[in-house]
Amino acid sequence: MSAVEIRVATAEDLPAVVRLLADDSFGAAREQCTDPLPDAYLRAFDAMRRQGGNDLLVAAIADDIVGCLQLTIIPGLSRLGAIRGQIEGVRVASTHRGQRIGEALMRHAIDRCRAAGCSLLQLTSDVTRTDARRFYERLGFQATHVGMKLPLP
Amino acid sequence: MSAVEIRVATAEDLPAVVRLLADDSFGAAREQCTDPLPDAYLRAFDAMRRQGGNDLLVAAIADDIVGCLQLTIIPGLSRLGAIRGQIEGVRVASTHRGQRIGEALMRHAIDRCRAAGCSLLQLTSDVTRTDARRFYERLGFQATHVGMKLPLP
Repeated sequence: MSAVEIRVATAEDLPAVVRLLADDSFGAAREQCTDPLPDAYLRAFDAMRRQGGNDLLVAAIADDIVGCLQLTIIPGLSRLGAIRGQIEGVRVASTHRGQRIGEALMRHAIDRCRAAGCSLLQLTSDVTRTDARRFYERLGFQATHVGMKLPLP
Repeated sequence: MSAVEIRVATAEDLPAVVRLLADDSFGAAREQCTDPLPDAYLRAFDAMRRQGGNDLLVAAIADDIVGCLQLTIIPGLSRLGAIRGQIEGVRVASTHRGQRIGEALMRHAIDRCRAAGCSLLQLTSDVTRTDARRFYERLGFQATHVGMKLPLP
């Protein structure tokens, strides 16, 4: 396998990232990979960068974007003012699965969390994604919580 | 019941909020309600305010703080650039339960999410907190996900 570089995404990476988000059983119906991309993605990326502590990470092999995740650093009062990291939207290209790219992305995110002083990293995973749950458990995550969602139409 | 006001917390509310966080089966061992408060809480509150979109809400009856929650607005790329709201640390004073204060806090948070353009509100709840899960289900939340946590000691 060629060397995988994990880095913060730039605006130039967005078309590849949106293709990754759509390359998924749930994402296929949710995303729009048109050329040019819908403005909504560019606005969302700008809003992430303005917030601070809200980064899109990508896994690149040479010029190919083969994985991504979103890492948000969330300060809070609970647990003696603990900072928590939160992961959303973990994806690895269907052409590159089984090459530990997801693990490399997650380990990079864990390192960033430690550097930011986080005492906890958290995520939710759809209950039907049993492979994903096993993947996170191998990394040390424990399924101690129920993940609840309220759509706001 | 006296009128409940839901508002964004100020630094003056922090001692009462930390007492609320500790007034809980999990929080009792996690928090420190000393006078003065440990600096860690003030630093955490400052970090929340600096981030933007990361607010501590309190429920007040006259001068009494009787409930709190943390609401973070998280922009992201997934779901066509959806903005999500996230709730942490929901507490109602043990002296004021059964008075729909938690519901008032949550409905206020939902209104703030809609105003911020969120299409989804999410939270995780410890699997042993079965009453909490029923409370959130009554508000329309669905337990579609597994909530996974990785401590970072």
